[in-house]
Amino acid sequence: MATPPRSTAFPAEQPQPARRPGGRSARIRAQVLDAVRAQLVEHGYDELTVDAVAARAGVHRTTVYRRWREVGGLLADVLDAAADDDWQPPDTGSLAGDLTAMNREVHTALTTGPPLTTALIAASFRSAEAADALGRFWEDRYGRCEAVVSRATRRGEIPEHTDARRLLIAATAPLFHQLLLLRTAPDLPLAEQTARDAASAAAVGTYAGPPTSSPG
Amino acid sequence: MATPPRSTAFPAEQPQPARRPGGRSARIRAQVLDAVRAQLVEHGYDELTVDAVAARAGVHRTTVYRRWREVGGLLADVLDAAADDDWQPPDTGSLAGDLTAMNREVHTALTTGPPLTTALIAASFRSAEAADALGRFWEDRYGRCEAVVSRATRRGEIPEHTDARRLLIAATAPLFHQLLLLRTAPDLPLAEQTARDAASAAAVGTYAGPPTSSPG
Repeated sequence: MATPPRSTAFPAEQPQPARRPGGRSARIRAQVLDAVRAQLVEHGYDELTVDAVAARAGVHRTTVYRRWREVGGLLADVLDAAADDDWQPPDTGSLAGDLTAMNREVHTALTTGPPLTTALIAASFRSAEAADALGRFWEDRYGRCEAVVSRATRRGEIPEHTDARRLLIAATAPLFHQLLLLRTAPDLPLAEQTARDAASAAAVGTYAGPPTSSPG
Repeated sequence: MATPPRSTAFPAEQPQPARRPGGRSARIRAQVLDAVRAQLVEHGYDELTVDAVAARAGVHRTTVYRRWREVGGLLADVLDAAADDDWQPPDTGSLAGDLTAMNREVHTALTTGPPLTTALIAASFRSAEAADALGRFWEDRYGRCEAVVSRATRRGEIPEHTDARRLLIAATAPLFHQLLLLRTAPDLPLAEQTARDAASAAAVGTYAGPPTSSPG
């Protein structure tokens, strides 16, 4: 699988910026964002304050207020930092294989380790700035994943005019739905089955071409 | 469409209990749950306190504490009350028609009127009791929707061994994903397309039988 170790698809559980340029400003940002992530995972959004983050990061509170203004700004920067990596979708040689590997990454992000992904999604219901940043993050991730669909098209596995986004969302949404909204127990076979269902639906042209007219 | 007016699928935007038995206890419950819904929609979870609900309902606070104990208990009872209706999934005569009508209801619940559904989902990230109650609510709703799948099977639209839950989640999850997590703008055609995609995938046997073996 062509993904770097310790990086996950949606969103990065352990954000690993591609490069961390030196300099005091970059070091402070890294310290502060590490503190935001740790505070969020350990105490949740309710105890995520600029003061708590500054104390945890060992940075003067006015530095944090000047650069990030408020909690929403801190959350948005955590998400923007998570997108600043070189993550690429898995390249296994088949559409079903790629989607399955993607969903395994999503499953890992949502069910293991510190629950940063879930905490960020929960925070996005309470901070418009975090919600916007999360939207940008997903947009970037789904954009990168379109490579999976174009490879499948080139290999002739799916029809040429397959709608990449429609297919990618069909493959991943049921997993998020089950784990985050329906709160079913972690279930890796479910993650894999969802991916295979989308791949086989795509192979027969389900996501290709314009939508048919509306029934009923 | 065979659904009662003012009732929506997931969860009821305007909960309409099938019957509201008389008596002081039932009246108090109705007043208190109305107050919880109004407070949640107007001020969010942060200002949802037992005291605020009691004041709003015009009920003595000790009455609320005795019966519901805390905010989690109030939220759970709102969700349990929402499930206590006679909602049935649409019966339009075709699988694509039924799923499309269902998704139109979901779209309405998530995008119009007071955002009670979204507020309850947001609250479920913060209260274990609300999360459990929301899980029971979904389970009940998806259970009722299995009738859509068995009718389609009887009509010969889809293979006999179609997994009802897998199909229903494939039809609805992309809509929740787009509106709640990706935060795309309200999009009724998207809701309808998602339903049709699942119906056409089901017709060719995508959700029938045991999963195929895992690739990659």
